[in-house]
Amino acid sequence: MGRYVVGVDFGTLSGRAVLVDVENGEEIACSVYDYPHGVMDEKLPSGMPLRAGWALQHPTDYIQVLSHTLPEVLRQSGVEAGQVKGIGVDFTACTLIPCLADGTPLCFAPQYRERPHAYAKLWKHHAAQDKADAINALAEERGEAFLARYGGKTSSEWLLPKVWQMLEEDEELYRKTACFVEATDWIVWQLTGKLNRSACTLGYKALWSPETGFPAGEFLRALHPMLERMPQEKLYGPILPLGAKAGEVTEEAASLTGLQAGTAVAVGNVDAHVTVPAVGIQGPGKLLAILGTSTCHMLLGEREANVPGICGVVKDGILPGLYGYEAGQSCVGDHFAWFIENCLPGSYRDEAAEQGKNIHAYLREKAQKLRPGESGLLALDWWNGNRSVLVDADLSGLLLGMTLQTKPEEIYRALIEATAYGTRRIIEAFEENGVPVEEFYASGGISQKDGMTMQIYADVTGKPVHITGAAQGPALGAALFGAVAAGEYASIGEASARMAKGAERVYRPVEENRRIYDTLYREYLRLHDCFGRGENDVMKRLRELKNGGK
Amino acid sequence: MGRYVVGVDFGTLSGRAVLVDVENGEEIACSVYDYPHGVMDEKLPSGMPLRAGWALQHPTDYIQVLSHTLPEVLRQSGVEAGQVKGIGVDFTACTLIPCLADGTPLCFAPQYRERPHAYAKLWKHHAAQDKADAINALAEERGEAFLARYGGKTSSEWLLPKVWQMLEEDEELYRKTACFVEATDWIVWQLTGKLNRSACTLGYKALWSPETGFPAGEFLRALHPMLERMPQEKLYGPILPLGAKAGEVTEEAASLTGLQAGTAVAVGNVDAHVTVPAVGIQGPGKLLAILGTSTCHMLLGEREANVPGICGVVKDGILPGLYGYEAGQSCVGDHFAWFIENCLPGSYRDEAAEQGKNIHAYLREKAQKLRPGESGLLALDWWNGNRSVLVDADLSGLLLGMTLQTKPEEIYRALIEATAYGTRRIIEAFEENGVPVEEFYASGGISQKDGMTMQIYADVTGKPVHITGAAQGPALGAALFGAVAAGEYASIGEASARMAKGAERVYRPVEENRRIYDTLYREYLRLHDCFGRGENDVMKRLRELKNGGK
Repeated sequence: MGRYVVGVDFGTLSGRAVLVDVENGEEIACSVYDYPHGVMDEKLPSGMPLRAGWALQHPTDYIQVLSHTLPEVLRQSGVEAGQVKGIGVDFTACTLIPCLADGTPLCFAPQYRERPHAYAKLWKHHAAQDKADAINALAEERGEAFLARYGGKTSSEWLLPKVWQMLEEDEELYRKTACFVEATDWIVWQLTGKLNRSACTLGYKALWSPETGFPAGEFLRALHPMLERMPQEKLYGPILPLGAKAGEVTEEAASLTGLQAGTAVAVGNVDAHVTVPAVGIQGPGKLLAILGTSTCHMLLGEREANVPGICGVVKDGILPGLYGYEAGQSCVGDHFAWFIENCLPGSYRDEAAEQGKNIHAYLREKAQKLRPGESGLLALDWWNGNRSVLVDADLSGLLLGMTLQTKPEEIYRALIEATAYGTRRIIEAFEENGVPVEEFYASGGISQKDGMTMQIYADVTGKPVHITGAAQGPALGAALFGAVAAGEYASIGEASARMAKGAERVYRPVEENRRIYDTLYREYLRLHDCFGRGENDVMKRLRELKNGGK
Repeated sequence: MGRYVVGVDFGTLSGRAVLVDVENGEEIACSVYDYPHGVMDEKLPSGMPLRAGWALQHPTDYIQVLSHTLPEVLRQSGVEAGQVKGIGVDFTACTLIPCLADGTPLCFAPQYRERPHAYAKLWKHHAAQDKADAINALAEERGEAFLARYGGKTSSEWLLPKVWQMLEEDEELYRKTACFVEATDWIVWQLTGKLNRSACTLGYKALWSPETGFPAGEFLRALHPMLERMPQEKLYGPILPLGAKAGEVTEEAASLTGLQAGTAVAVGNVDAHVTVPAVGIQGPGKLLAILGTSTCHMLLGEREANVPGICGVVKDGILPGLYGYEAGQSCVGDHFAWFIENCLPGSYRDEAAEQGKNIHAYLREKAQKLRPGESGLLALDWWNGNRSVLVDADLSGLLLGMTLQTKPEEIYRALIEATAYGTRRIIEAFEENGVPVEEFYASGGISQKDGMTMQIYADVTGKPVHITGAAQGPALGAALFGAVAAGEYASIGEASARMAKGAERVYRPVEENRRIYDTLYREYLRLHDCFGRGENDVMKRLRELKNGGK
């Protein structure tokens, strides 16, 4: 009689559960559920409009993921609830829910339904950029030590700007909020009946560290008097390391999910971070890039290094005993989708349809016939700003080298190449600052489907690109933490060694291409520094003009 | 019984004749004839392939223009041949025909039909760029005085590189060539039976000036020993000023065209230059921009000034008694056509078709709703290199400021704005060097059809844009020179005063737009100088890589 674990991965638009075999990580069943409310970035459910930059979610959707997908994987697999030994959860972050003391989201209360700040703020809620700017300026002025852990700059996507925005714009609701809870911890709360916080999300998204805790009250007070004791007042609760058991499935959660009461529940985790052991990475030197609409880069190091421009470094933040580094690119799949939507001529669309081909596949067919450098084009991949290493949401795109002979597939390929240059820039930031990158692993949809892009990444970075085998990397990773919480394995390392789906394919750099891309990358770097580091701030001035300034 | 004149305008793809009333310039009839061979840039009529950059024409097409359009305007109008007092001709330039001593183009001889150099080299034949580069380098090294008249740099489109290329690549044919003849002079030769050369084309395209003649033999010998006496040997013939009578229609030409033998024929002219008096410009301060696939700028000055980066300044080159300045932009209508062909999404194409709208009109509808600066985009209009003021065919396009929200109409408008910035740069080059530009006149297709673009030009340049009324500006201009040759008027000035079609509409700058465009233009200039003047030569390095270098 087999033993199983379940992982539940909460993405931006849907949640998915996988049921896997504890012995070998084989996926036995999988179920996906789309959030009924999706991303609310234009209006509340009532129709009340939201301002630009807002991105909310409704936590009722998360509950429905549990109640739909968990019974479904049991049904599909024929596995009995008693055979499921543990469950793990991962989520986007920082996705933040303001709650009452019992864990009820404020937006569940009828009297707050028209109050935008009562809802969950999704990771990509950007409407508190002014708060992030103020935090960065003050921290730099005061020489706050925490800043170095975040590459010198913190993001509007994190916890403090989101909390501060609520305080400023809806103080009454801020006072009603008993606690702010990361969505991953909130799910664990729903399953176990108690609030435990993940050291991972606090470390990457709430400026917390195991050694020094939260930023000092004095710093927070300088931002806003009421923020001084905010961590003590509204971020309370035990902080558990990754790999810990947060509790057991309650009777109530059992009836919601079909799992057995008493099943072990792992402490909450983050979607990118949880994927690292799922692809078999257990130590330093292997960079994992998760390529989706945007790209996250995960890397482990033996020691803490200051790497300017990365998102963060957190001790035990990915795997226990190691420093976990995170970096990112804001615009990858989104970039190619923008091109298809806004730049693809009708004649190409028609021909792809006539040949019965997916439009990306059709374009790739044309683009991969081009040799590197043949188009004469070069782009900066900043259509959605730059997350690493410039950490600047106000940068924008650049395309250069067009002639009257320039073809759509050449532009398409130039955009892909630009994201590869961006990745190489991140790798070099790590290497220049004493965090070695020896191997490159890729997961996520693009890595599975798009061989041309992966070959370009190999040629541009000069490193073999290992494509990992897990179709559902994050959910498998969550299941793996569930297995450790259940005591099936003594450590994440052991679990990873048995359950991970490692590299299945490798794209190796072609020397001739690498040589040309070295030349092109030097040109990219020069433009990168010119437009990204203040030599010519034209992108910022254009944005100001666009927003009606000047 | 009325008195009439005829003007024949030879363009890149077709020739057109207009028959106009001598009294007032009213167009009585018009006839267009497309060149059967068009532009030969891929292969000879036999199918023999041509190398990249070649652009040839077949002079038999020019003869057919005469034999089709001239009888046709007589037929249409009911005017009798005896009522036609004079004829004028304008042509693209430098479009160069290698001839035998009797004026027969070499390509008419069966034994030379497979020899590319036997055909007419069209103005945009760019395959002698290496020759132009060598001419510029040597002229600069030797401090040749003529260089200053051409803004410091001569073009591959002119006579000397075309002649030198033939000498190097097909010396036998070069030796067989009795004379090289500008196409405009060749047409006049066909009409009058004798070779006369236009001082205008020699001045703008053959490095000749009335004061100093052709470049010195010593300079030419340093290029190639056989070029030393090339002007004496192969550019012989009387040189006549604009406005002169070249001769009279011969019996043979009369039977070809239906005109009366003895009809006065004006000396040949160039398409852009001939348009100046046709729109009523008779003196300094009024810049005429002829907007087509590319744009030509014509300006008159009282004195000779060195204006870096213009195409040329020639005494009496446009109107007698004044210095005629020429500048240009390589990519205007071509730019917008490239966008439609390569970047317009199928959804836009479909919607325009559904609404029964021309695609440019459809895009304009969307683009003109944008306020200046709203898109956040900025472009450099160098898709086809830069003619003025950088004189560099190796530059390429740039587009900057894109986000994931950027729409096609925003890119379209940014390309249009870029051409307006390029025009402003040319105006400023004149003004900075002592050639005043007080008014701005526009002619050509875009000026007639595209009010949005003309308003942008007014807002960007800060000058009212006067749209001229002549539907066929160059052909009317040619007719006007025909009238002077016939003695109907004593001077071009008098003819222009009576026959020209001046400004019909004016677009005036809107102060608020002008203010924003001033800001944007400063950003354009900074990019212009950065990428165009050696600060970052990335465009040239990319082109080298594209051509297989490095």
